[in-house]
Amino acid sequence: MNWTNPFLDADGDKLREECGVFGAINATDAAALTALGLHALQHRGQEAAGITSYDGVEFYSRRGLGHVAENFTSPEAIAELPGTMAAGHVRYSTTGGSGLRNVQPLYADLASGGFAVAHNGNISNAQALRSDLVRRGAIFQSTSDTEVIIHLVATSRYPTMIDRLVDALRLVEGAYSLIVMTPEGMIACRDPLGIRPLVMGRMGDAVVFASETVAFDVVGAEFTREVEPGELIRVDFSGEVHSLHPFGRHGARPCIFEHVYFSRPDSMFAGHTVYEARKAIGQQLAIENPVDADLVVPVPDSGVPAAIGYAQQSGVPFELGIIRSHYVGRTFIQPSDGARHSGVKRKHNANRGLVQGKRIVLIDDSIVRGTTSMKIVEMMREAGASEVHFRVASPPTAHSCFYGVDTPERSKLLAARMSVEEMRDFIKADSLAFVSIDGLYRAVGSARRDNGSPQFCDACFTGDYPTSLTDLAASKGEAAQLSFPDHKAA
Amino acid sequence: MNWTNPFLDADGDKLREECGVFGAINATDAAALTALGLHALQHRGQEAAGITSYDGVEFYSRRGLGHVAENFTSPEAIAELPGTMAAGHVRYSTTGGSGLRNVQPLYADLASGGFAVAHNGNISNAQALRSDLVRRGAIFQSTSDTEVIIHLVATSRYPTMIDRLVDALRLVEGAYSLIVMTPEGMIACRDPLGIRPLVMGRMGDAVVFASETVAFDVVGAEFTREVEPGELIRVDFSGEVHSLHPFGRHGARPCIFEHVYFSRPDSMFAGHTVYEARKAIGQQLAIENPVDADLVVPVPDSGVPAAIGYAQQSGVPFELGIIRSHYVGRTFIQPSDGARHSGVKRKHNANRGLVQGKRIVLIDDSIVRGTTSMKIVEMMREAGASEVHFRVASPPTAHSCFYGVDTPERSKLLAARMSVEEMRDFIKADSLAFVSIDGLYRAVGSARRDNGSPQFCDACFTGDYPTSLTDLAASKGEAAQLSFPDHKAA
Amino acid sequence: MNWTNPFLDADGDKLREECGVFGAINATDAAALTALGLHALQHRGQEAAGITSYDGVEFYSRRGLGHVAENFTSPEAIAELPGTMAAGHVRYSTTGGSGLRNVQPLYADLASGGFAVAHNGNISNAQALRSDLVRRGAIFQSTSDTEVIIHLVATSRYPTMIDRLVDALRLVEGAYSLIVMTPEGMIACRDPLGIRPLVMGRMGDAVVFASETVAFDVVGAEFTREVEPGELIRVDFSGEVHSLHPFGRHGARPCIFEHVYFSRPDSMFAGHTVYEARKAIGQQLAIENPVDADLVVPVPDSGVPAAIGYAQQSGVPFELGIIRSHYVGRTFIQPSDGARHSGVKRKHNANRGLVQGKRIVLIDDSIVRGTTSMKIVEMMREAGASEVHFRVASPPTAHSCFYGVDTPERSKLLAARMSVEEMRDFIKADSLAFVSIDGLYRAVGSARRDNGSPQFCDACFTGDYPTSLTDLAASKGEAAQLSFPDHKAA
Amino acid sequence: MNWTNPFLDADGDKLREECGVFGAINATDAAALTALGLHALQHRGQEAAGITSYDGVEFYSRRGLGHVAENFTSPEAIAELPGTMAAGHVRYSTTGGSGLRNVQPLYADLASGGFAVAHNGNISNAQALRSDLVRRGAIFQSTSDTEVIIHLVATSRYPTMIDRLVDALRLVEGAYSLIVMTPEGMIACRDPLGIRPLVMGRMGDAVVFASETVAFDVVGAEFTREVEPGELIRVDFSGEVHSLHPFGRHGARPCIFEHVYFSRPDSMFAGHTVYEARKAIGQQLAIENPVDADLVVPVPDSGVPAAIGYAQQSGVPFELGIIRSHYVGRTFIQPSDGARHSGVKRKHNANRGLVQGKRIVLIDDSIVRGTTSMKIVEMMREAGASEVHFRVASPPTAHSCFYGVDTPERSKLLAARMSVEEMRDFIKADSLAFVSIDGLYRAVGSARRDNGSPQFCDACFTGDYPTSLTDLAASKGEAAQLSFPDHKAA
Repeated sequence: MNWTNPFLDADGDKLREECGVFGAINATDAAALTALGLHALQHRGQEAAGITSYDGVEFYSRRGLGHVAENFTSPEAIAELPGTMAAGHVRYSTTGGSGLRNVQPLYADLASGGFAVAHNGNISNAQALRSDLVRRGAIFQSTSDTEVIIHLVATSRYPTMIDRLVDALRLVEGAYSLIVMTPEGMIACRDPLGIRPLVMGRMGDAVVFASETVAFDVVGAEFTREVEPGELIRVDFSGEVHSLHPFGRHGARPCIFEHVYFSRPDSMFAGHTVYEARKAIGQQLAIENPVDADLVVPVPDSGVPAAIGYAQQSGVPFELGIIRSHYVGRTFIQPSDGARHSGVKRKHNANRGLVQGKRIVLIDDSIVRGTTSMKIVEMMREAGASEVHFRVASPPTAHSCFYGVDTPERSKLLAARMSVEEMRDFIKADSLAFVSIDGLYRAVGSARRDNGSPQFCDACFTGDYPTSLTDLAASKGEAAQLSFPDHKAA
Repeated sequence: MNWTNPFLDADGDKLREECGVFGAINATDAAALTALGLHALQHRGQEAAGITSYDGVEFYSRRGLGHVAENFTSPEAIAELPGTMAAGHVRYSTTGGSGLRNVQPLYADLASGGFAVAHNGNISNAQALRSDLVRRGAIFQSTSDTEVIIHLVATSRYPTMIDRLVDALRLVEGAYSLIVMTPEGMIACRDPLGIRPLVMGRMGDAVVFASETVAFDVVGAEFTREVEPGELIRVDFSGEVHSLHPFGRHGARPCIFEHVYFSRPDSMFAGHTVYEARKAIGQQLAIENPVDADLVVPVPDSGVPAAIGYAQQSGVPFELGIIRSHYVGRTFIQPSDGARHSGVKRKHNANRGLVQGKRIVLIDDSIVRGTTSMKIVEMMREAGASEVHFRVASPPTAHSCFYGVDTPERSKLLAARMSVEEMRDFIKADSLAFVSIDGLYRAVGSARRDNGSPQFCDACFTGDYPTSLTDLAASKGEAAQLSFPDHKAA
Repeated sequence: MNWTNPFLDADGDKLREECGVFGAINATDAAALTALGLHALQHRGQEAAGITSYDGVEFYSRRGLGHVAENFTSPEAIAELPGTMAAGHVRYSTTGGSGLRNVQPLYADLASGGFAVAHNGNISNAQALRSDLVRRGAIFQSTSDTEVIIHLVATSRYPTMIDRLVDALRLVEGAYSLIVMTPEGMIACRDPLGIRPLVMGRMGDAVVFASETVAFDVVGAEFTREVEPGELIRVDFSGEVHSLHPFGRHGARPCIFEHVYFSRPDSMFAGHTVYEARKAIGQQLAIENPVDADLVVPVPDSGVPAAIGYAQQSGVPFELGIIRSHYVGRTFIQPSDGARHSGVKRKHNANRGLVQGKRIVLIDDSIVRGTTSMKIVEMMREAGASEVHFRVASPPTAHSCFYGVDTPERSKLLAARMSVEEMRDFIKADSLAFVSIDGLYRAVGSARRDNGSPQFCDACFTGDYPTSLTDLAASKGEAAQLSFPDHKAA
Repeated sequence: MNWTNPFLDADGDKLREECGVFGAINATDAAALTALGLHALQHRGQEAAGITSYDGVEFYSRRGLGHVAENFTSPEAIAELPGTMAAGHVRYSTTGGSGLRNVQPLYADLASGGFAVAHNGNISNAQALRSDLVRRGAIFQSTSDTEVIIHLVATSRYPTMIDRLVDALRLVEGAYSLIVMTPEGMIACRDPLGIRPLVMGRMGDAVVFASETVAFDVVGAEFTREVEPGELIRVDFSGEVHSLHPFGRHGARPCIFEHVYFSRPDSMFAGHTVYEARKAIGQQLAIENPVDADLVVPVPDSGVPAAIGYAQQSGVPFELGIIRSHYVGRTFIQPSDGARHSGVKRKHNANRGLVQGKRIVLIDDSIVRGTTSMKIVEMMREAGASEVHFRVASPPTAHSCFYGVDTPERSKLLAARMSVEEMRDFIKADSLAFVSIDGLYRAVGSARRDNGSPQFCDACFTGDYPTSLTDLAASKGEAAQLSFPDHKAA
């Protein structure tokens, strides 16, 4: 649950969603609607934003580094994007001026006319496909894996756009939720496993698509349904909607981390809010790992819902033992005679008067590198806490994600290197516990994980990747990385 | 408690602190320390920031619009501010380029050498003093009331700097917490009523001053004591500290709003955290105004501590029924077919799945104009709440502040125009209640308000101003404003 | 000769060169050298500049809108461009942020490795080639005609880079002087007619190429020779230089306007300075069109060398009757009670005390739309000149250029619409005369124009285009444009 | 004559005017008119520009670093400056952000209302006056000497504004041409010696003032007369014009350097254009210092008019042997294997084909440090000139100016350190000669210098300063500087 703060994890001690997408067709002010919808998805990517629109004649694009609000709130910006169809994208991790090349939607003039695409996910054989395309004379504009899809469409020999797109996607492996715009209308589609989310809504005559339902709440649209795994939905300018399942129907594997960590607490998946799921995880944690304590203290803001669940289940009062600053931003010059850990203190300060002499249970959503957790435990002790117990609302994160979530390389993941006891020692807590994998599945509505045919992609916890990883296997680093001694799995 | 979000009240529906100050002397990296300290006080003023330093030979200044982090985090910025003494200031409400003239610390070359001052408060006879000075040939650089103090010092005929400063302050009426720098050292002082706060700390050999203790936590200093009302503390470069009370000792009247609303919850006043005071107000509210409900829902983030107190006292569970976005910023272009109130929804979204069919108690810290409260009540109803009760953790705010808090003119204050029942009707809640003035005093540790000699400045609630208001009385608007029919007081 | 002032022709009343190129290989600081060389070619394009370098491993690019000095003088900028090979480009007429896409050198990752190209000229069948490439799946990044060359190279089936480039250029029609960089070295080439210039020089071990010799003077290189029409020169990192003539050798047709108008007066072509050529044209003008007058006054700065020639030939004294401001830049808001023509006066002011009562001969290099000429004649009369005779150091410019010179559409060219007498009437001069086409050829060293096989491209004067104009013929506007009644030719 | 190039003297090898002023009253668009007028005076100061206007109620100011065109061409900028009275200022040598404080017009709110002043000149007892004012409690906003005048006015005890201004100016010593604005109208005045220029014009109902007549040409105003030395001209909003001579009438001493070097060639002084004066100096030079040569070559652009005069007088042809680039700007990174003196070559390149084998006479307007002259002589020789003779259109510049012209400290002036023969040796010319002081006076219309009562301020040549230099005498450096051994005067 890092819905809260774009800066919290400046030291890379959180996992990050890489993208959010929004699209609208047959909407009077498609670009303004898309800007607002993207803004509601800002937690999915803070580094860059882009919108492309189509007015029946031409495509228009505007892209910028930074937040949606910095780039798409002026009347001038919106006026540059006329038309009744628009799609937008927010992304994490594009730096530098030339980085604008990688900001989506990507656009190309094909022989069939304009083609724009916004992509959430990651193509795990993009390098292989790209090398082949370049050998055939293709010239790439960006380093984005998404551009591979455009070149595959451009060089497909099928006659219709839908056929060319399906032809292209058959070659693609990995995770993708796409919003495509052509002069004929909008196509939304999701990879066969449905790893990344994509939802569909309506707003009068307009059809809208988004990564999460919260975008519909904010723009005032009504949620219709999820785009199904492997489904392509085509909407044209007459308002007709067609659904295709060109890849057949297989067992879906939506990302479980997505549902319970990345999405905003007020987004809904499968009929439940993310907030409820997180509270339920907190309750599971309290059942599985109770502790005798005076206060339940969330690590703000990511630990708040789970901490409420933990407190309600355990009867230990919920209190704000850590106060978060709303002004974090850049790193300050450290005064030579300054406090230790003032970096953490700038963001999180102990509520000293409350904590002093108390036994506290800290609740956070995950431990990635462990460095922030260690500093927070230390801060609690310096503020006078008599005991500090740490409870984590996810299983240990021991594997990298190759489907669109920014994870450190595996050797930097604390849980890939240490047992739980070693981790407890590292962060210097009095006790440490994680929710079990079955407890996690239970909190999101399953009885348990079906190990033969898991209901979700949980590779970051289990290492059980649902697709092949072609590029990774081809890279030299692969051997080392995949063979990393995994004593956690033991 | 608007510690949380600089943008929340873009529509002016919150009261705002106008300034924060920080100073350090005999510190190795005084400017870096001051930048960090100011950053911890950022909630006290987001529009502009300035730091002035002194290296034993010259004074150096750097000022900028925007946050401390935007102006004082680069090594170049800090390198421009050498020396072991520095003071800084954050302020609300300076707009435009020329506005830089009003950004503090203000500095002047006097015959005695450089003179810099950072001021938190408001001088209520500044216009009268300024007119008189201009008649005598003074040329003002800014429109800041603070500059009056400098000219009074510059034209005082007393021989020493301390005497000149005391001479100047004797003419000044209103609220001031000052940090002054001269070639001899630093002087911190507070007006005789101690309306605005100022605290003193130590950090090795360095002496530090700040508006709130949280700045000491962040920089790693130890809290020594509050600067007393009417006290001048002089610190020189040999480390000697002298205290003066040139105005005698009178009954203090610190701002009660400051303690329980503006300051960060982790700041301490009179031995208690602000967080505790706010929880206690919530408990008082629950005692004075109970309601039969399913959920206690804070208006984020300002209502959170009081809501925790209300929930603990009443036994009704605390839940996040409203989710706040962390990406608010500018106003978006409203799509023509967009949702009503998407402005509010961009900031606050109902946690629909949780709220539906529930009786909820909304808790906020104050009602100013009432427009936001009305929209939030409506949003709760649209999300399916069956009953919406509103509880406010302060008495009705019916009077403007003239001591450094940015309040709308009185006619815009909802409580100046309406009875509680009319206000309930305006915001369309099922019930509305405010904590009583005695309940408020009780929550901050007094048995009740001593009406003959009140322990705090509570003029915003009571209209009982502790000083004369010379400039206001001289202005034409005064008659109308002061005689505004005050049916709230009836 | 618009070497003088980038702003003079803000109203489009001058022809403009579109590009300049510079390249260096086996140079210690190739990028710094290229920046300096480009700066010397700044008069050939002021809107944007770019440099690409290669350090034996990777290519590096930096591009910016504005002048070379604004983009390539900081140590940081140069440090971003390491390596011993670099090429750069200045261009006229790229506007807007997205315009950066069109700033050269263009770069692509081909299967053979990196490929960068800087192009001076214009491909007159670019649209036709582009359509065909897109039909085959190529995706274009820019709207530049130069990108066609890259895609042709990328999709060529020949094995070596030189063969692929020759294969590509065989399909290309029009004018091009190219500097190409690949991991094997640098290739400089010029179209078979040699329409645009390109010269080669040496500087120690380094080989350098540039549009004009003045770049060699400035960087300190020695001029070796011109790149011949239709020649490809390949230089590798061992210093070997190979010359190819893959297209055979045909009659060259270098641009005569280039030599006598665009290039800097201190550049040399065919053994003579441009300054000498311009003086010789002035002398021809005086021989062909003498006038009884008191002063010869150049229109600054473009008319200066011809005016010196005219004055020396005629014996009428050369005087600065018009003073040019060095600070022109943007258009000012016109005061409602301001002078007429203050726009012209901001740039050129009559030297009133000198001109009053005198018969003057104004000398300029060309008349394009005629509006500036009209204003200058009027300004001379207002300053008291008794007679104003206008002499033009070129034949009437009656046809558009399709080879890389920015000309207004034909209907805007004064000489395409009017006879000389009508033009005289339009600009309100007492007399008007142009140098004859044979006089022009004589000034640059030929006895006369060989009408059967002209020695130069002089299409802008004669309408005799040396290549087919495929794209123009395909466009709808062509019929109208080419059939424009040409009473000048009558 | 540095009317030509703002960048030419980046290495400090030219003298520079420090300011230009323009004012207009009773003009419909006073600010737009002032912007245009200032633009025509841009050669008098390129670092910063400011305009202040008055609309009958309030004063408005806008100031910026850089050129007039960069700051005052947008409709928004002009719209910020409403009213029928405005004055503006361009200045040389203000750097850095805080430098905006020194950009004029300076403005202050006095007891009598607003007071704005634009000043061309330098007050030679500013430090002494300032110290006294600060002792009496005045607080200065800038480091500008001009602010002294405002404080003297603010603290004057006279009843009317004119009396207070005269009271202030009586205390001031040095050079000043002032344009003052108050709510009653505009006051233009000039110091008793009239050292700096100031002219008056009309434009319909409007009265305008400017440093040079060229501003009137550009805005379309008619020149009325010069403001006389020691005269105050007051213009009110009814259009009435009053002239005062409060200091009596003494012998004037206008700056001779101003007339013949700084001003634009098309400006007029005492009935003659500056261009004519410069040509006449060239003729004097040819008479006093003839030389047997092939070409007269001006150092562009400052030497052009004198070179025309020299050529006409001597019969040696005038030729552009040096070509100046119009794109100079910043310093480029020097390539390690680059040409020597590429810095000079970026600005000035030898017209090699013309110069080779020729005996040339170089003409420049002055020699300051001598470094540029040396490089230009060397460049001529490298280009093949067989002899290089240097002629200078001013006497040797051997003394600093304290009246508003930016001169290097005296020890940096070549003529203060060397005899003419030593200077010739330093710049490596075959011969070197300067115009004589009497020749200079003759060229501007006098028979010769009246040594008993000189007609001009020529202190930079003669060391004969027409006022006392109080601040200089008080400074420690004075002794050393004034006693610098002056073998030139011998």
